[in-house]
This record gives sequence, structure tokens and C-alpha cells, in this order.
Amino acid sequence: MTGVAISRTQQFRIDARRLAARIETLGGVGAIAGGGVCRLALSDEDRAGRDLVVGWMRELGLTVAIDAIGNVVGVRQGLESGPPVMAGSHIDTVSTGGRYDGNLGVLAGLEVVRTLNEAGMVTRRPLAVAFFTNEEGARFSPDMMGSLVFVGGLPLDAALATVGIDGASVGDCLQRIGYAGTARCGNTPVHAYVELHIEQGPVLDADGFTIGAVEGVQGISWTEFTVGGIANHAGTTPMRLRHDAGYVACAIASHARAIAREVGGDQVATAGAVALSPNLVNVIPFKAVITVDLRNTDEAMLQAAEHRLHAYAAEVAAAEGVTLSHRTLARFEPVAFDPAVVNLVEETARALGHSVRRMPSGAGHDAQMLARICPAAMIFVPSADGISHNVQEFTSLPDLEAGANVLLQVLLKLAA
Amino acid sequence: MTGVAISRTQQFRIDARRLAARIETLGGVGAIAGGGVCRLALSDEDRAGRDLVVGWMRELGLTVAIDAIGNVVGVRQGLESGPPVMAGSHIDTVSTGGRYDGNLGVLAGLEVVRTLNEAGMVTRRPLAVAFFTNEEGARFSPDMMGSLVFVGGLPLDAALATVGIDGASVGDCLQRIGYAGTARCGNTPVHAYVELHIEQGPVLDADGFTIGAVEGVQGISWTEFTVGGIANHAGTTPMRLRHDAGYVACAIASHARAIAREVGGDQVATAGAVALSPNLVNVIPFKAVITVDLRNTDEAMLQAAEHRLHAYAAEVAAAEGVTLSHRTLARFEPVAFDPAVVNLVEETARALGHSVRRMPSGAGHDAQMLARICPAAMIFVPSADGISHNVQEFTSLPDLEAGANVLLQVLLKLAA
Repeated sequence: MTGVAISRTQQFRIDARRLAARIETLGGVGAIAGGGVCRLALSDEDRAGRDLVVGWMRELGLTVAIDAIGNVVGVRQGLESGPPVMAGSHIDTVSTGGRYDGNLGVLAGLEVVRTLNEAGMVTRRPLAVAFFTNEEGARFSPDMMGSLVFVGGLPLDAALATVGIDGASVGDCLQRIGYAGTARCGNTPVHAYVELHIEQGPVLDADGFTIGAVEGVQGISWTEFTVGGIANHAGTTPMRLRHDAGYVACAIASHARAIAREVGGDQVATAGAVALSPNLVNVIPFKAVITVDLRNTDEAMLQAAEHRLHAYAAEVAAAEGVTLSHRTLARFEPVAFDPAVVNLVEETARALGHSVRRMPSGAGHDAQMLARICPAAMIFVPSADGISHNVQEFTSLPDLEAGANVLLQVLLKLAA
Repeated sequence: MTGVAISRTQQFRIDARRLAARIETLGGVGAIAGGGVCRLALSDEDRAGRDLVVGWMRELGLTVAIDAIGNVVGVRQGLESGPPVMAGSHIDTVSTGGRYDGNLGVLAGLEVVRTLNEAGMVTRRPLAVAFFTNEEGARFSPDMMGSLVFVGGLPLDAALATVGIDGASVGDCLQRIGYAGTARCGNTPVHAYVELHIEQGPVLDADGFTIGAVEGVQGISWTEFTVGGIANHAGTTPMRLRHDAGYVACAIASHARAIAREVGGDQVATAGAVALSPNLVNVIPFKAVITVDLRNTDEAMLQAAEHRLHAYAAEVAAAEGVTLSHRTLARFEPVAFDPAVVNLVEETARALGHSVRRMPSGAGHDAQMLARICPAAMIFVPSADGISHNVQEFTSLPDLEAGANVLLQVLLKLAA
């Protein structure tokens, strides 16, 4: 492109109403009470949503390829051939999902294409808009399955053999809904990947920022502790003769908060589930099971938090004379996005006049899989009150518009 | 009695094998697997147990009176008339009860009578052996109902109208099993009351004492806290933006332990029940309900513990920005037994060569009701491993013998 062309493209803006209309139309597929959506991966509703979006891709002139795990990639030719600059996300939802989660990134990508089509603008590199199969993991485990297979991180056969919560396999469901494609998985070159997504957390909304330049995805450490004590009468058993599994579990839960404070930075800690046995007011619990969810963007800090947690748990259990065992329910290392692309998101947002903050993602996204094979980053827009995976999920029209315009300009720069 | 007579009575000893045989026979009524007993109050099994014990009372020559709440009192004439010195307890059980809880005090009382009968010994005051209706409260609430009505602490009509867990009323059940007696409740004079009971706790067994001289019954304070927070994503919600109901509940539970340590003495504290919502590993709980059971033999100290608990709960809830409410599930003031009778128990046990310690009762007993109308105290014998309300409940034959002989000698002194 020439200097003049760059100047012209900097004026390009998406049409927010058009984007919002498509979000509403797609949100009508699998709609549930309260304004939400249920389009579990590879369900009839997912097929209907896929058909709708693929139709829109074809209307925009994109070349649609469907791979063997059902990922859909629509490519817009560039002045040169080669790996595309890709926007994408997912269109499957949890069972009580909202309209924005995933869908925004895909439909904003299509709105970018539409804007460029109407301007008659052809980028140097090809552009692509993709949606990946089963990002949510609500029907089939693991989540982010399609993007994981796309980058070669999970063998296709293993993914196809996965049986969901209703007993159906991924392979059979793909055949049934007509999305068992022919494109090969695991060796698709991508020049760069940018995913626009709602934050699904409260930070941007609470602090009054419009755009989040996402630096990476938190590492996750889920531990389940099982404490074995001795049931006894709450009145007749002196404190010195107790082996109280419930006390130890609650002490660990409380201490998780102290760990988050001590480690600092982006460290979060949550004790979300507790089960005491027999769970009666006047019986000292003989068993307690508790979960602790630790997350950090920095692997060393996450490990430090884990070490503190286990050291404390062992100490308090030994002092109480109870048994302690644990198992790891989940463990993922943090993902760092490409600093150049993160900078590009931040600078672009600022150039467009938006308030922007660098931040981690607390949830997993397809972008963390794409980051394995290409420079990748994400653009966050606010979730009202931080609410997501809920029919009340909401992002305002100005915020949708801001996010999509940042996506447009970032894609143009990456494709230039 | 003369000096010579006193000397002779000091040599009296119960027959432990006879006592054990009766415990075994009564334990066969409503027997359940594992050596336990199920004789819920006013059930067919309770009727059979009552009939058996009343038969034994009559065989021993006792004059049996049944009052309108079904309490049974067997009186042995003394040299003088007047209020009797009473031994007693209960013969109802919880649904998975043992053979000793309650039954021991009643059957040991009968064994004392049998011993005196065989020695041809007549005490100055009358002796009585009583068993009170529905001590356990496992079928009808409140527990200790019969003794409470006996001392005038609960109107008879209210007690009779009580509906149990199976929908039947106390009054109907008493009629059905033939134990709606004619003796008046609420104005029976008693000279003194002594209850032999298994400890139902681990102290005597753990510390190697044979006899507990029970100084009183702990006051009980049961509080249920409900914490209202905001559900949020465990990954995307920074610590500073959390309103974590689960954290606050677990912090209160942990702090209950600190309160027991700080208040000291006989103070015990138990957080026995916790319920988080939604109770998922990766969701910050929006609701938590927790119970705290505080007990102390000293009312002022119990109130101090309550104040500390509520102050801490309010503080941690305010800091977290969550709502906090509480309700009192139970509140009873401590009961102090008569110092002279407690001393008599202690001295008698020591004179008989038994190791003895003064101690509180952590559980409620009929003796605490009788203490409202006469000097009262209790004799504890060890529960193996502190186990009670369990089919494995066990007290050794030497300990049963020691407890019954202490009861014998204490009754003789009180009746002299």
C-alpha cells in the first residue's frame, strides 16, 4: 500500500448497527428466555448458527474451508498469497450463554470484511475470519478443542473420539450436522491472529476503560484437597482432642486469600467448593473436601502460590492430626501473547481515541492456542458488571463499535 | 442409722455381672446390627423396653407411678416418708444408639435397689429410680422433654401436642403404648437427684480416669450465619473486585477455633456445617451458610465467645463487601450442679479407690432439668474412644461396676 492508501484506510470505520443486527440475528438461533442463547457445540442449534454464519461468509465473497474437526475459515484474497492474517473466535455457547461471548469476535471479523469490501480495499496479505469448534467445552471436554486440533496440539482422532455429556461422540456429531470437513487439521500456516472478545470480567467496566489490550492468558492451577479427621460430639470433645477435618478445610480456604495477597500482582485465588461430612451443626466433621483455584499470568509466581498453598495445608493438617491428600483437577501454564501485537492493539486503541489498559485474560480463549503457531493477541471490550456465561451478558453498542474498529485497524496493519 | 450401720453400708457393692446382663437384655429390645439399639421415644420398641423395666421395678418391690407425660418413677420405701432420693436417666435411644446411653443410669439404679434389698437395708429417706420420656429428642423436639415437664418447665399440654418427625403426636403415642399415666406432672418433690451416665466424650478414656464428677452442663449457643456475596468468574475477577461469600464463611469457621483458644477454659467451638452456592471450583460463591456451635460451662465466658464471633463476622463481612445475617438455632445457659452433691460424688469415688476428675458435661441430660427443683449431680464413666450415639458405644465392665458402686454409695449418703 502507498502512504496515501494507509492514510485512507485509517479513516475506515465499521458500521456498529450492522454488527449489532448480526449479533441479534445469530443470538436468535438457540435463543432462551431472558435474552440468552443455548447453542451447545455440534447440536442442532450449533448447526443452524454455523449455517447462518457460513452463509454470511459466502455473501461476503469469502472462500470457506471446513476442516476435519469442524473449524470454519473464510478467506479473503490479498494482493499477495501466503498465510492470512486471521480474526476469529467461536460461536458455540454454554447452556445458559449470552449473545456476545465468542460470537462478537466472529461477527466483528465479518463486519471488517464487509467494510473493506464496500471500500474496495484489498490488503496485501489475505485476511481470514474463523470460528473454532467447541471452544466452551460445555458439551465435550476439553474446551478450546477445535483451535487445539487446528494448531496440532491434540490428535484429530482423539478429538473425534471424544464422548460428550450426552453420550454422543464429536465425530458422529460432526457427521450428523454436516460439518466434518475435508481441510486438513494441524498444518495451517497463519501470519497473525487477533481475537476480539468480551472481557467476561469486571475490570474494564469497573475502572471505566473501553479497550483491553490482552497480554496473555492466566495459568490455571486447580487443586482438590481431601481432609480426613475423626467425627466427634461438638460438646463433649475438648479442643485438644479434636481432629476436625472441617476446620482444616476452612483454614486452607481462608489461607488461599492470604496467598493471593502475599503473591500479589495478577494472582487470584478462589475456594469455590467445600463439602463437609456429616455436615451437621453439632458433629465435628470427619471428612472435608475443598477446591482451590489459583491463577497467575506468570508461571513462576503461580508455582510460588502453589507451594505456599501446599505448605500451609500440610502444616495445618499436621497440627490438627488429620490426614491430607490432594489431586490436581487442572493445570495449564500461562500463555504470553506476542508483545508486538499487544503493543499494536494498545497503540491502535489509543490512536482511535479510546481509553485502553493492558491486562491478562482470566478465562481461556482460542487465541491462546493460535499463539502456539503465530503472533497472536486479543482485544477485550467491557462486560457490563463483569457478567458472562449468563443470559444477562451485555456489552454496549459504543463498546462493540470501539472493539470492532480496533480489530479493523489492527488487521489492516498486520495485513499491510 | 447408727455408726455401725454406716460402716456396714460402706461395704455394700453392686453385682456387675447382674447389671451387665440387664444392660444386655434391655439392649436386645429394638436391637440393630452391630450391637446397637433403636428405641425411639414412644415407639413400639420403647413400649417393650418400658414394659421390661417396669416389670423389673415391680419385681424389686418398687411402687411404680407413671405420670401424664409418661415418666416412670419406682419408689422404695424409707424409714421415713418424704421426698425421695432419686436415681434416673432415660431408656429411649437415637435411631443408631448404643446400649449404655441412658439405660445405664436406670439399670444401675435398679441394681442399687436389688443390692439393698438383698442386704435387707432400709434407708432413712425413700429411694426412687426414674426414667424420663423422650430424653434424646430424636423423634420429638425438644429433647429432655419428660424431665422438663416433670420439673414444671414445659406445660403438659404443649408437650402432649408436640408432633414428631413421623407426624404422630406425643399425646397420641402415649395413649397408644399405654404410658399416658395419671400421676400429676410438675409438682413432685425430690430430695436429691443423681444420674449415672456414660461420658459420651473422650476425656475420661483419653486421660485414664474411671469416674467423672460432673460439675454442670455446658451452655450451648448455636448460630447460623448466612453470607450474601456476588457470583463471579474465578479467573477474570481481580481480588479487589470480589465479594466472596465463601471466603467470609470459611474465615468465620477458622476464627471459631481462634475464639476457643482465646477464651480458653472449657470453651469449645465447632463449625460443623457449611454450604456454598453454587459450590463450583471456578465460580466465586454468591452465598454461604455456616453454623458455629459454641459451648461453655460459664455463661459470662460463653457470652464473651459469642461477642467475639459476631464482632469478627461483622468485620470480615464488611471488609469483603458482603451481606451478613444470622439466626440463633439454639441457646441454653450453662447449668451448675449442686456443689455439695458434686463433692460427694468426687469424695465417694476416691474413697472407693477410683481415679476421678471433676468435669463438665458437653451434652444435655435429664439431671440438668432436675437441678431446677433439687440438689443434683451426675457421675460419668468412660466411653471407649469417646464414641456415643453409635452402635459401637462401649463402656467396660470394670467401669460400669465402678460407676454403679459410686452411685450406690452416693445414694446411701444422700438418703441417710
